[in-house]
Amino acid sequence: MSLPADLLEPLRRGEHRALGRAISWMENGHPGARDLMARLWPHLGRAAVIGITGPPGAGKSTLTDQVARALRAEGQKVGILAVDPSSPFSGGAILGDRIRMQRIAADPGIFIRSMATRGALGGLARATQDAIDLLDAAGFDTVLVETVGVGQDEVDVVSCVQTCCVVLVPGMGDEIQAIKAGIMEVADLFVINKADREGADQVERELEAMKSLAMAQAWDPPVLRTVAPQGEGVAELLLALRDHGRWLRDHGGLARKARERARLRFESLLAEAAVRRAKAQAGPARVEAALRGIADRTLDPYSAVAGILDEG
Amino acid sequence: MSLPADLLEPLRRGEHRALGRAISWMENGHPGARDLMARLWPHLGRAAVIGITGPPGAGKSTLTDQVARALRAEGQKVGILAVDPSSPFSGGAILGDRIRMQRIAADPGIFIRSMATRGALGGLARATQDAIDLLDAAGFDTVLVETVGVGQDEVDVVSCVQTCCVVLVPGMGDEIQAIKAGIMEVADLFVINKADREGADQVERELEAMKSLAMAQAWDPPVLRTVAPQGEGVAELLLALRDHGRWLRDHGGLARKARERARLRFESLLAEAAVRRAKAQAGPARVEAALRGIADRTLDPYSAVAGILDEG
Repeated sequence: MSLPADLLEPLRRGEHRALGRAISWMENGHPGARDLMARLWPHLGRAAVIGITGPPGAGKSTLTDQVARALRAEGQKVGILAVDPSSPFSGGAILGDRIRMQRIAADPGIFIRSMATRGALGGLARATQDAIDLLDAAGFDTVLVETVGVGQDEVDVVSCVQTCCVVLVPGMGDEIQAIKAGIMEVADLFVINKADREGADQVERELEAMKSLAMAQAWDPPVLRTVAPQGEGVAELLLALRDHGRWLRDHGGLARKARERARLRFESLLAEAAVRRAKAQAGPARVEAALRGIADRTLDPYSAVAGILDEG
Repeated sequence: MSLPADLLEPLRRGEHRALGRAISWMENGHPGARDLMARLWPHLGRAAVIGITGPPGAGKSTLTDQVARALRAEGQKVGILAVDPSSPFSGGAILGDRIRMQRIAADPGIFIRSMATRGALGGLARATQDAIDLLDAAGFDTVLVETVGVGQDEVDVVSCVQTCCVVLVPGMGDEIQAIKAGIMEVADLFVINKADREGADQVERELEAMKSLAMAQAWDPPVLRTVAPQGEGVAELLLALRDHGRWLRDHGGLARKARERARLRFESLLAEAAVRRAKAQAGPARVEAALRGIADRTLDPYSAVAGILDEG
């Protein structure tokens, strides 16, 4: 399938409308999606990709907006992907998103998009990875990937980014306890946001204690403080992000992350394509019969899958 | 591969050690896993499967324990699966789990297991589904599936249960706002835990307002209040759970949920098996070459996958 001429060029120029359409193509498995990605592929690899993650209520959106604004002030083009696995049900992220979009819609140098599971064939991580690549191909200098929560989706999404900021806040108590376990291995940078609240010192002490318990790592994640609505600490955060980017380049980290992303990409696309092919070969009637058999307990799911694949 | 005689019979009798081993088999893709599930399959479908979900800090563990205790007092055998997608990194759930296990380890009528992503081939939802089926086959009357957070993993896990309780607490503010969007469509039952705290009335008003906005549903999810450490409201919760179970049976809901579970099961197993087969047919050298090509941008991932599948 050939691409419409009115998609590729406007996309490469960074036009928002073409970008939005291309992201939807990738999400929905449009017939032209594969050709589009193949054509863009040689142009990728320029953008800095930064993840901003942490628990709900940590102020990630405000912080993300402040970082975007600061990068804009330097003349960068900035993409924001807000990844929200909880929104598939009723589009929960949409309202907040619209408000954000109104505020910055006038600026062609910032592109913002909410990524939800609904309609994203092959999962949120794959759709997010596609959107990152489209923004990269469209000449965006930095892509900020903001996630909600600490589930497996976020873990997969985190593996798409080059630098991962984990945002915490003072006084979260239970939640920080619950989150802590998972963050040491993904954090390149800790941000204590709302640092003007009581308890910032304690969070910092806890983080430092966790770091000293963790195995010695080549990169020691710094702990920064911000008050996002006032923009406090954002300049320091930008410097720390750049430090980490430089460190990655100097220590082969970018190549390592590129390999990791390649593997993730390959695995998820292979799973999608292999399932599609197996189902097509078996035909809908046999797939339906297998599903009925599993549901009414006359056929176990492992045998059902073996049947579909072996006879396919 | 034939099953060791010392696994199937003790498992069917509900012996903890055999159960633990069988769950690990399924998680790790043991060569005997498929045969095990095929043999158990005709014996399934008796257990009531109840999900308990909600944000971190809502007191889900304590509530789960209280429900388990109340069901035990009626003579039921109860399985608890604690699903924690954040723990794969450093096994964060393990400590809390051990404390819980010590408390109830003496009772052979309660089996508790933490489900984390680490080592769970094919994802947490599939591993959880397998564990539910093993507990069902082992004669457990009720399986309580306790989850953390609201990511896609939880959504998948929720589709494994028959009745889904969403646990909220007064005064969570931002977090409830963030969670609300996703819960209307999964909740069969709302529990306001820590209901002795200020703000319980407000949470209830918000829930009722959400319900009145939602499309009319055949089942109207009740809103209950508990104070889990004191066991307050647990008896009422048990009655409401039974109400919902009866409603499901009377309205074809169990059959509908069985079909939904069958579909989920089939899809995830098919993806696993199809990928395994495609890789085996292509061979490791060609898979490696594809990964290198994607990482160094000489090959786009869609073309790489097509190459592996077409020539496989």
